Amino acid sequence: MDKDNLTVVLHSKGDLRLEQRPIPEPGPNEVLLQMHSVGICGSDVHYWQNGRIGDFVLKQPMVLGHEASGRVVKVGSAVTHLNAGDRVAVEPGVPREVDEFFKSGHYNLSPSIFFCATPPDDGNLCRYYKHNANFYKLPDNVTYEEGALIEPLSVGIHAYLSSDRLAKAKEMGADFLLHVKKEDEPKEMAKKEMLGCMPQISIECTGVQSSIQTAIYAARSGGVVVLVGLGAEMTTVPLLNAAVREVDIRGVFRYCNTWPVAISMLASKKVNVKPLVTHRFSLEQAVEAFETTRQGLGVKVMLKCDKNDQNP
Amino acid sequence: MDKDNLTVVLHSKGDLRLEQRPIPEPGPNEVLLQMHSVGICGSDVHYWQNGRIGDFVLKQPMVLGHEASGRVVKVGSAVTHLNAGDRVAVEPGVPREVDEFFKSGHYNLSPSIFFCATPPDDGNLCRYYKHNANFYKLPDNVTYEEGALIEPLSVGIHAYLSSDRLAKAKEMGADFLLHVKKEDEPKEMAKKEMLGCMPQISIECTGVQSSIQTAIYAARSGGVVVLVGLGAEMTTVPLLNAAVREVDIRGVFRYCNTWPVAISMLASKKVNVKPLVTHRFSLEQAVEAFETTRQGLGVKVMLKCDKNDQNP
Amino acid sequence: MDKDNLTVVLHSKGDLRLEQRPIPEPGPNEVLLQMHSVGICGSDVHYWQNGRIGDFVLKQPMVLGHEASGRVVKVGSAVTHLNAGDRVAVEPGVPREVDEFFKSGHYNLSPSIFFCATPPDDGNLCRYYKHNANFYKLPDNVTYEEGALIEPLSVGIHAYLSSDRLAKAKEMGADFLLHVKKEDEPKEMAKKEMLGCMPQISIECTGVQSSIQTAIYAARSGGVVVLVGLGAEMTTVPLLNAAVREVDIRGVFRYCNTWPVAISMLASKKVNVKPLVTHRFSLEQAVEAFETTRQGLGVKVMLKCDKNDQNP
Amino acid sequence: MDKDNLTVVLHSKGDLRLEQRPIPEPGPNEVLLQMHSVGICGSDVHYWQNGRIGDFVLKQPMVLGHEASGRVVKVGSAVTHLNAGDRVAVEPGVPREVDEFFKSGHYNLSPSIFFCATPPDDGNLCRYYKHNANFYKLPDNVTYEEGALIEPLSVGIHAYLSSDRLAKAKEMGADFLLHVKKEDEPKEMAKKEMLGCMPQISIECTGVQSSIQTAIYAARSGGVVVLVGLGAEMTTVPLLNAAVREVDIRGVFRYCNTWPVAISMLASKKVNVKPLVTHRFSLEQAVEAFETTRQGLGVKVMLKCDKNDQNP
Repeated sequence: MDKDNLTVVLHSKGDLRLEQRPIPEPGPNEVLLQMHSVGICGSDVHYWQNGRIGDFVLKQPMVLGHEASGRVVKVGSAVTHLNAGDRVAVEPGVPREVDEFFKSGHYNLSPSIFFCATPPDDGNLCRYYKHNANFYKLPDNVTYEEGALIEPLSVGIHAYLSSDRLAKAKEMGADFLLHVKKEDEPKEMAKKEMLGCMPQISIECTGVQSSIQTAIYAARSGGVVVLVGLGAEMTTVPLLNAAVREVDIRGVFRYCNTWPVAISMLASKKVNVKPLVTHRFSLEQAVEAFETTRQGLGVKVMLKCDKNDQNP
Repeated sequence: MDKDNLTVVLHSKGDLRLEQRPIPEPGPNEVLLQMHSVGICGSDVHYWQNGRIGDFVLKQPMVLGHEASGRVVKVGSAVTHLNAGDRVAVEPGVPREVDEFFKSGHYNLSPSIFFCATPPDDGNLCRYYKHNANFYKLPDNVTYEEGALIEPLSVGIHAYLSSDRLAKAKEMGADFLLHVKKEDEPKEMAKKEMLGCMPQISIECTGVQSSIQTAIYAARSGGVVVLVGLGAEMTTVPLLNAAVREVDIRGVFRYCNTWPVAISMLASKKVNVKPLVTHRFSLEQAVEAFETTRQGLGVKVMLKCDKNDQNP
Repeated sequence: MDKDNLTVVLHSKGDLRLEQRPIPEPGPNEVLLQMHSVGICGSDVHYWQNGRIGDFVLKQPMVLGHEASGRVVKVGSAVTHLNAGDRVAVEPGVPREVDEFFKSGHYNLSPSIFFCATPPDDGNLCRYYKHNANFYKLPDNVTYEEGALIEPLSVGIHAYLSSDRLAKAKEMGADFLLHVKKEDEPKEMAKKEMLGCMPQISIECTGVQSSIQTAIYAARSGGVVVLVGLGAEMTTVPLLNAAVREVDIRGVFRYCNTWPVAISMLASKKVNVKPLVTHRFSLEQAVEAFETTRQGLGVKVMLKCDKNDQNP
Repeated sequence: MDKDNLTVVLHSKGDLRLEQRPIPEPGPNEVLLQMHSVGICGSDVHYWQNGRIGDFVLKQPMVLGHEASGRVVKVGSAVTHLNAGDRVAVEPGVPREVDEFFKSGHYNLSPSIFFCATPPDDGNLCRYYKHNANFYKLPDNVTYEEGALIEPLSVGIHAYLSSDRLAKAKEMGADFLLHVKKEDEPKEMAKKEMLGCMPQISIECTGVQSSIQTAIYAARSGGVVVLVGLGAEMTTVPLLNAAVREVDIRGVFRYCNTWPVAISMLASKKVNVKPLVTHRFSLEQAVEAFETTRQGLGVKVMLKCDKNDQNP
């Protein structure tokens, strides 16, 4: 077997290194993967540039990467549903404890969850990676890169699924575009005619206070504002306006139970994520790839971890 | 028939008068009531003292009172489910239009709703009052005063019903008391041990910013903060903390579909609201009754509108 | 104004007539419509052939038709949101009472609801028709025929919306086709591999006992079987199997709050219903049109009620 | 340490034995319990008398008992939240796999779940028992017997929580009693006046066909019939009546996430289950205890497994 396990390690703020690491041995409930495609996320770049995101602080070297797909090369003794050769997409979060959140279907909220490339947990930007056997097989008509893109796709699916007014939203939701400029007054912005109706659900993705305010003022009474974007610790919002019109304000954290839905969407060609990949680099070119992402060039930069298969 | 229709009218800020008004004639879908018991609400006193609540501004004389019960004395030509002599409780909000809110079960959010004693709509602090035949018969074992107390009870029921995590809340909810003082830091307050768990649902009834902040910090991940208290137009809240822990922030506005539930609770003796009535005045003593409420004496002040029956 | 109000009236089982009726005068909350396009529904044909559907029995002449669109020609004195000239789609169900079902957002379940072409209520297969002003304006890019097709589209939307597992269903739902033959054993049918998974939601549209049984056996644990098809009064089902696997069995009756969603779907071109119209007849040819539908020719037969505009 | 591990073992239909078994050693994620109180369930007696329940067939000797509480005497190496001496209640179901059901909050539906005293899994009618460290500490004011009664209490809580119309149900639900006799016609039974309203939710606990039919006919339109009682494999029900009135039929299987709620209810004295225990036997008297249960004497028969503490 191959001994090359080139790995992308962040040692400290600004100190990104490529180094060899031993190929790990999977435990009974684990699986060893040969990584194929790993996308670079804004959060990977943020750790590289700042050494932290909020309360998550890099204190020791950490492997980056959490948007990943690969091929099973070895399965642990207790694993029955996967075999060597299976093509899989990696869900980066794995609960460590069967706590109240996990048991009630919200494992993403479990405080002790393992999460790839969130300190102190290692990610999977490497040649060989072991993980809980919590994998999802990719159908033949879904590429590795599509598998790697399930993670960012999941953020959207989870935000969407968080609204119990989903049905209406699904039909009406994505048809309006409202560009919010800095100098705009939220209350005035909200009054702009948008096809003649107020949105039942708004998904706020910036975290900027004025934009959150606009989303609240613009919401239909009884509607929902979903907060995806993360902003400042404290935010000033028109809570009275929201309360008397029964507008719910809901946060979403990562995702939960989204991989099967995402695979189904990809297999049935209901979404097309392929055009999102604008740049590809071999794993050896990881630093260049990170620099490309940092400069905001293109949309999604993909690292190709398999020396023998650099296809999408 | 009686010609006395003594009525409590607020002419302008501070100008509360008792005056005779003609006994109204019910329309086809209306009912004429002989009022029996009408509670004084904080909002009645607030209009009296300030002439407005938020955007609702008194611009012409308005009859006060919206916590009411009485006896049917005449029914409109199209009314089939009520008869003269029926004892009823009055739901003060009646939608004027069959709009999207009404059709989807949220008539309380209908912008054009009629609502007793909210400008410009008259209330029912009088001897005879006509109303949409949207009444609920009181079972024999529910008193008129209990009927009048359904309105304030509804605020609580609706706040409660607004949580889809109701079930857990119902068992765990009301067992903790956390006194919030002005000088307390919300984040520190929230850490105080309360029977070893964080609440799944908090019902915030003050509208005070520091208390709302405490409710958010204290909420269990995946939990709900229900806003009942109305505070300032803008509020600064730890929205990031709420969002990443998927804590929902929900407002409630008045109530919707609560009368049948409330009557059932009263008839089956599951709640006992009778001790809340601490003061009773005849309708002629209305000004004294309002003054009593304004001074914060007692809990609920009840006006007895029926000259011949001043019983509870 | 025109005096021609040619109308399609079912006098008794098998006795379908075209006759002139006076043009009605709209009441305060009503609107007079010049009908443009009215689709023929299977239920129209069923009344014609059998004089009844279940408990709904034709006892006096009834105008047929309930899949309709037209143009406002006159508005009642209390109507403010519609004007002469507006192009509209007709929702055939209008609740007569503000009962508990209506107030809680389920007006389709109100026992006293008015419903076009359901005995004893007249439908709108005519030139001029008055209706509660409960109309929905059609955007310019939605044709009259699309407006008329909203009614059958609503059946599907409502069935769909009735599942709170909608989200998953939406992605996974419509990809499998399982042909059920009479001689198949439901339990064996259910075991057939269908893309490797059991459906989270099944929508049963036949009402046939063996097909309902198959839908239950095939359902994923925790899933939903929605009953759209109406069958016999009593049905034998594997209730034990459903119960221990927490499979919900849910019925749907007509629809509720679907017009705005449907109009949005049509305006945004998310669905294309135009190809469904395979035959068009002028109102004068109504009997021929009904005969075409009775013979099962084509998909949707449309009657064109406006002499001066027979466009789609 | 004690070497006595007297155990109640069902060897085959009708062959119930008391025998010594070795005290087990807990694995890393397990805990060893000294059992205190274990209730006898109808299913224990059913296995004893019939050797099977439905598809669950006794093929090898099985320890009975699954309504249990005890004291931790040893914890596995990976267990951090429990310590020797902790008083705990045992949740008998422990999922073996992190499958789709577990991940989405419905671990009770996981097909491979371990469940005490369901073939082939052993129960806990013994002196010493090891179990996944999935325990719940009992507050000081909750007795061991109350802890053992959480299992049957959970069946009720779960049935209740399965209705999203819970709120209304909670207030209105348990006030009516309708005795169904064999000779009654379901449709006629359903019409009997019960405080003037039809139930929003009915919980059917017998599994008898005529009673299920009555529950459906009696349900309010838009209401729910929850099936708790398990009956025959096939049941004939008025599905048409249920469907057109949008009455949901829902099964419940065991329970899920109920222990914390139940403990809270017991600790706060909201329910009083103590009077349910009508008989107590020492573990040595197990056969006599089973015979008492089989004869239907009393309500709950409790086996006292701790030689040194036979208190409630």
